Amino acid sequence: MKKLINAPEDVVPDALRGLAAAHPELSVDLEHRIVVRRDAPVSGKVGLVSGGGTGHEPLHSGFVGAGMLDAACAGEVFTSPVPDQMAAATAAVHAGAGVLHIVKNYTGDVLNFRMAAELAEDDGIEVRQVVVDDDVAVVDSLYTAGRRGTGATLFVEKLAGAKAEAGAPLAEVADLARRVNERSRSFGVALTACTTPAKGGPTFDLPADQLELGIGIHGEPGRERRAMMTAREVAEASLDAVLAELPAGGEPGEPVLVLVNGMGGTPLLELYLLHGEIDRILRERGVPVARVLVGNYVTSLDMAGCMVTLCRADEEFLRLWDAPVRTPALRW
Amino acid sequence: MKKLINAPEDVVPDALRGLAAAHPELSVDLEHRIVVRRDAPVSGKVGLVSGGGTGHEPLHSGFVGAGMLDAACAGEVFTSPVPDQMAAATAAVHAGAGVLHIVKNYTGDVLNFRMAAELAEDDGIEVRQVVVDDDVAVVDSLYTAGRRGTGATLFVEKLAGAKAEAGAPLAEVADLARRVNERSRSFGVALTACTTPAKGGPTFDLPADQLELGIGIHGEPGRERRAMMTAREVAEASLDAVLAELPAGGEPGEPVLVLVNGMGGTPLLELYLLHGEIDRILRERGVPVARVLVGNYVTSLDMAGCMVTLCRADEEFLRLWDAPVRTPALRW
Repeated sequence: MKKLINAPEDVVPDALRGLAAAHPELSVDLEHRIVVRRDAPVSGKVGLVSGGGTGHEPLHSGFVGAGMLDAACAGEVFTSPVPDQMAAATAAVHAGAGVLHIVKNYTGDVLNFRMAAELAEDDGIEVRQVVVDDDVAVVDSLYTAGRRGTGATLFVEKLAGAKAEAGAPLAEVADLARRVNERSRSFGVALTACTTPAKGGPTFDLPADQLELGIGIHGEPGRERRAMMTAREVAEASLDAVLAELPAGGEPGEPVLVLVNGMGGTPLLELYLLHGEIDRILRERGVPVARVLVGNYVTSLDMAGCMVTLCRADEEFLRLWDAPVRTPALRW
Repeated sequence: MKKLINAPEDVVPDALRGLAAAHPELSVDLEHRIVVRRDAPVSGKVGLVSGGGTGHEPLHSGFVGAGMLDAACAGEVFTSPVPDQMAAATAAVHAGAGVLHIVKNYTGDVLNFRMAAELAEDDGIEVRQVVVDDDVAVVDSLYTAGRRGTGATLFVEKLAGAKAEAGAPLAEVADLARRVNERSRSFGVALTACTTPAKGGPTFDLPADQLELGIGIHGEPGRERRAMMTAREVAEASLDAVLAELPAGGEPGEPVLVLVNGMGGTPLLELYLLHGEIDRILRERGVPVARVLVGNYVTSLDMAGCMVTLCRADEEFLRLWDAPVRTPALRW
């Protein structure tokens, strides 16, 4: 196995140490494996906590900072964090206005965050939970009941983060987060499987002349295998799948936020090239594009591939997207 | 070959089209294959132009914007742009205060930028050239006379960009750029070779249990092959090589800027983990760290691996590093 690591069992603490050294504006609790805004708790603000298995970086730790998350919990690779971590993060960011848990829809994450919410509520902290389930590729998988949570997590964390930063109360932040999730859909394609440190080999076998449509972010196989496709064909297949299930939006002709996301091992050159095709197809189909983000944001270790996420955006969404954000991975 | 492309011969124009669609704040000239700040030429400001072969993204096109480059020229993959492109970029950004060409030290790039400077000077534009040559791994390679230009290009473009944005005259911006290069050193390590679209296979063979020390950014092999190493060992070998040739700086104990750079196919998780080791070793050796950047910035297509660049920074360097920058890949 070729990875820049020391030992498979040390990947998570070692990476958190490096994150702490690189970002003095974050407070990294190595015991609980949580990453917290250094200025947390922010007086009067609703706290936003997310987290999940490690291996999806920059999600979630790279999205901690002003205008986005207050804290992120790091589980082992592709493994949910435990309720104690989540409860510690919740307590660290609670400033009296309550805390929103943003949870990707995987059975372990949902259960553990629910237990953490109960622990926090025992301590008098009001907690709401929003579950992200945007992936149209499969319903019910190895890890999930219902759709999986993938690229839309970035939209939920950014928009709810901006709403909380603006001083909205917990019920409104939670409602906004739910609306963002409901209006978002994703579809992913793998050119290679990923290699987990513990396994030391690819999580599934993908021949050199094939790709896999409808993959998730945990190295699980997708819904269909095909002969290698051009970027144009990948863009078409992805948008066919996403647009078939994307809500129409409140007003006719409402535009979309577009995330052209790399799975971790795909260079930016290819992602921009893919976006050229995405943009062309959306124009042809009369879908107005309001904002675009291209890069490796919601990843699956070293997997080569891409995921396209669209979010049907009303005017509030656009205002919240444009609001300032200061995190390691998203800054404007 | 598994890449998100349409056809090898269309990679550069297709990717530029996607870049244009994603970044309306940039003006992309598809005929000349140049990327220009939309507000260029900026009245009274020295213009900064760089460029080189495609395949190193986000370098250089992702560094175009306020506080960094005014324009970038895109060559074919791993191939220098031609003088006409560079001359067009120079004319597009000239605002009366002259233009600085920032050139990585590869024979084709140096010669073509020199010809472009002559063309521009025929049109009455004053041009200075700074050549970046920070890579300590090899002297004289397949592509270079002298040391290769790699990671320090980011430091030169950021600091000279801030200096130009602050209104400094051409001679001072050029002098600053030269000083940044002189005080910077890099060393790279590959876990895999990269695959160019034209070749369709790896540029060199690297067995599954070996890595290559001292690689460049064009898929050329390095100076030594070893059995797979831990992140700790990679950090040590890289810093041994860099620190042996890093200038001491003007004052005793001057700190360094640190770039922990991925080669394109290495996920952020591993780069942060590596930075944990880099940070620890620099502390042990008494090298103060002033600023850190971790990510895939100066890449070699889909190569897995890393490059460490240090720049000995005086107070002016730190001020210029901290100055605002608004480009696709670097924003603060």
